[in-house]
Amino acid sequence: MIYYTSVLVLSFLLILLAFCKFRIWKRVIQNGDTVIDATCGNGYDTLAMLKMVADKSGRGRVYGIDIQGDALKSTASLLDESVTLKEKELVKLFSICHSRMEEIVPENSPVRLVAFNLGYLPGGDKRITTVSETTQLALEAAKKILIPGGLISLVVYVGHPGGMEELETVEAFASGLSVSNWICCKFQMLNRPLAPALVLLFKREVAETQ
Amino acid sequence: MIYYTSVLVLSFLLILLAFCKFRIWKRVIQNGDTVIDATCGNGYDTLAMLKMVADKSGRGRVYGIDIQGDALKSTASLLDESVTLKEKELVKLFSICHSRMEEIVPENSPVRLVAFNLGYLPGGDKRITTVSETTQLALEAAKKILIPGGLISLVVYVGHPGGMEELETVEAFASGLSVSNWICCKFQMLNRPLAPALVLLFKREVAETQ
Repeated sequence: MIYYTSVLVLSFLLILLAFCKFRIWKRVIQNGDTVIDATCGNGYDTLAMLKMVADKSGRGRVYGIDIQGDALKSTASLLDESVTLKEKELVKLFSICHSRMEEIVPENSPVRLVAFNLGYLPGGDKRITTVSETTQLALEAAKKILIPGGLISLVVYVGHPGGMEELETVEAFASGLSVSNWICCKFQMLNRPLAPALVLLFKREVAETQ
Repeated sequence: MIYYTSVLVLSFLLILLAFCKFRIWKRVIQNGDTVIDATCGNGYDTLAMLKMVADKSGRGRVYGIDIQGDALKSTASLLDESVTLKEKELVKLFSICHSRMEEIVPENSPVRLVAFNLGYLPGGDKRITTVSETTQLALEAAKKILIPGGLISLVVYVGHPGGMEELETVEAFASGLSVSNWICCKFQMLNRPLAPALVLLFKREVAETQ
C-alpha cells in the first residue's frame, strides 16, 4: 500500500513538473523554430515540441534523439497516433548518442530549445541510463548550437544509481556558465530526495554588458 | 560599472522572485484569512498580504512581526500611504522575535500563510540579521499554527555572513517534514551562488494516507 501510494504521488509530481516545463517551453518556442529532444524516451516531449513549432510554413523542425531503438519506435508510434502526416514530416529521429547532436542538426539552424530527460527510459530496461560523461558532452554541444533567447531544459531523475552524480554534473555545468549570457536555475523537492529536479538554462537574448 | 550592473541584475532577480512569490500566495490566500509576515522589513510583503486578505467582512488579519523598530515604522508608513484606515485596522504590528509568533496570534485563528524574508533589513543596519537558532524556532511555531492547505514561504538571502548556514537550517527543517502532510520545494539560481533562494512549504489539505 505504501509502495502504491508512493507511485501515485511520484506520478502526480511528474505530471506537475511536466506541466510547469511545458508552460515555460511555450514562452520560449516560436512557430517555425528548430528544437531538439535529446532524449526521446516514450516521445511525449517530442510530441509537445512538435505542436509548438509546427505551422503552415512548414519551417519548424524537431530533431529527436535516443540511443535506444525501442525509444524511437515508441516515439514514432505516438506521433502516428497523434499528428498528421505533414506534421510528422517535421520530426527527424536519430538513434545516436545525444553528445553527437551537432552532427544531425544543419549548420545555422535557429535551435531555440534543447530538452533532456536524464535517467532511464520509463517502462524500459532500467540498466540503460544516460551517464555523466556523455551528458556533459551533450550539454557542451547544446550550449554551442543554441541561439540567444533559447533554452536548455533538463529533468534529472536521481532515483537510480549514478543519478545524483549526473545531477551534480549538470549543476557544475550550469554554475560555470557566464552570468552575462545565461540565467540558470533549479527547482527541486526538499522532503523527497529522490524526486526529479528541473534545471533551466536560459541563454540571454542580449548579453549583459559589464 | 560592474558593481552597478550587478546591483541592477540583482534588483531584477528580486523583482522576478517577488512576482513568482506573490502569484503563489494569491493561489493559497483567501479573503478573510489570517496571515503572518514574520519579517516585515520595509513592509512590501505586509501590504501585499493585506490586499489579499481584506474584504468587506473585515475578518482578514495580517500579523506583522519584526524585531527592529525601524522596520515596523517603515511598514506603518507604507500602509499609511497605500491603504484605507479601515484596511490598516486589519494589520497588527509587533516588535518581537518571530520565534514568539504563537504569543500574538489568537488561538484557533485560521493561519493560511506565514512568510519570511531571511537576512537583513534592506537599507538598514546590515549587522542585524535573522539567525538560524530563532529561525528554526519560528519555523516550528509556524508549522504548529498553520491550517491544512496553508503555506510557509521563505526567501532566504545568502549573501551575508551566516546566510548560507540559515539556508541549510531551512532546508534541514523542510527535509524533515512528513511527505504525507507537506510538499516542500526550493527554487534557486545556479550560476549566481549569492542570489536568494525561494523555499515553499505547503501543508496538504488532506494528509496523504499510507
